[in-house]
Amino acid sequence: MWIIKIGGGGRINLPGIVAGLARRREPLIIVHGANALRDELAAALNKPRKTITSAAGVDSVYSDEEALDIMMMAYSGLRNKRIVELCQRHGLNAVGLSGLDGGVVRGRRNGGFRCRDGAKLKVVRDLSGKPERINGGLLQLLLQNGYTPVLTMPILDETNSAVNSENDDVVALLQKTLQADCVLQFIEAPGFLREAGDDSSLVRQMSATDIPFWIDMTDGRIKRKMMALQKLFVHGARCVRIGDGRGADPVGDLLSGQGTVVQ
Amino acid sequence: MWIIKIGGGGRINLPGIVAGLARRREPLIIVHGANALRDELAAALNKPRKTITSAAGVDSVYSDEEALDIMMMAYSGLRNKRIVELCQRHGLNAVGLSGLDGGVVRGRRNGGFRCRDGAKLKVVRDLSGKPERINGGLLQLLLQNGYTPVLTMPILDETNSAVNSENDDVVALLQKTLQADCVLQFIEAPGFLREAGDDSSLVRQMSATDIPFWIDMTDGRIKRKMMALQKLFVHGARCVRIGDGRGADPVGDLLSGQGTVVQ
Repeated sequence: MWIIKIGGGGRINLPGIVAGLARRREPLIIVHGANALRDELAAALNKPRKTITSAAGVDSVYSDEEALDIMMMAYSGLRNKRIVELCQRHGLNAVGLSGLDGGVVRGRRNGGFRCRDGAKLKVVRDLSGKPERINGGLLQLLLQNGYTPVLTMPILDETNSAVNSENDDVVALLQKTLQADCVLQFIEAPGFLREAGDDSSLVRQMSATDIPFWIDMTDGRIKRKMMALQKLFVHGARCVRIGDGRGADPVGDLLSGQGTVVQ
Repeated sequence: MWIIKIGGGGRINLPGIVAGLARRREPLIIVHGANALRDELAAALNKPRKTITSAAGVDSVYSDEEALDIMMMAYSGLRNKRIVELCQRHGLNAVGLSGLDGGVVRGRRNGGFRCRDGAKLKVVRDLSGKPERINGGLLQLLLQNGYTPVLTMPILDETNSAVNSENDDVVALLQKTLQADCVLQFIEAPGFLREAGDDSSLVRQMSATDIPFWIDMTDGRIKRKMMALQKLFVHGARCVRIGDGRGADPVGDLLSGQGTVVQ
């Protein structure tokens, strides 16, 4: 069984990825984002994404009910159903799920951000959270009956409310629950780059034992990606491949050795 | 097992309906619309619903790819996931599905509308179709494992493309496949009205054998509703209740005898 993570960038070749996956006849769980589509929809509705700046000066997305509505439209609605439709065209009997459906991803709402309000510090709490458990029973039920789960945001918090979360954390938890043979990740870059934006800095091979080194060496978004990668190996992954989702045959490219292989 | 149809009007009390259903502890399949939400979203995106006028002068919705995108956002996205969230809050372990998911509703694309183009007649074909079969295996699998399927548009056509369809036809086909004990329908009226808009014309009791009479006596949307109702009885329904979805406790009201009972 493979776990496939498809990034939410606007240049990802979804038909190419789905066609490539369908040819391999391997049981799959697909996890996808839709951030480019979400931002486009939010702009068209004149409800741009809100951010909040913590007391330490770090910007984070601020998810309120309106942001969750837009997430449901973009992630669980349009992007998820178009991927399911592509799967059906290629003979994969996909079932699209948000984390809410069958309580497939349950977690805990974040405590809040410390923010400066003039001279005072205050805690602002939004609708985001960390996934804590997967309903592996439902996913196994679907897989055993020949279905391909296609999973996306949002997830359920401890009060059964929808909250935003990180797909990287969901993928790590899926790995823990289902012990996939391989995790394939499709992004808008040739693989893991030493220097963001510089394709010549592609890291072709990485040992799982090197990940702590990379965590020390990086910061921001890349550091978070490295920490998510580490979790996959803590949870028993033997192979993670990270490759370009923009080519004509992203799955073929990745399996033939392009991109970054982490073992 | 009950089939619940929830109309897509803007004044339907969804929390009230879900709370009422959760109290009954009866296995359920929920089918819902989202037409008010769809129209609102389409207007906000400045992509209003298109209609087409047939040669016989009848207006129909014209569904193109853009309309399907909006349907996926409003029906399978926002409305479906908010209903699933409500179900989870009330202890119903709901799984939201469009007709695409697991090929749960498959059908055939409509041949086209005959339209006048100046002096000539032409056939215009949109992305709409008729449902022909239900994946009862997937629905039974979910029901037997304690899940509540929450079903909505779109459906899959014979080329595995998403098409718009009528929820009334899907409900009739569900009845044929699953032989529910009871079909409950929630609309924005006190029940079936002899005269649209006149609440005092409520028909409290109707015999299934009277439906052909009502089909002869009505036209337009009401005639189509009557034809869908007839199909339910052709497919073995013993009881259909149609009631007001706008009250504080729509399920309690309907089960205590309010609305229209068809037997």
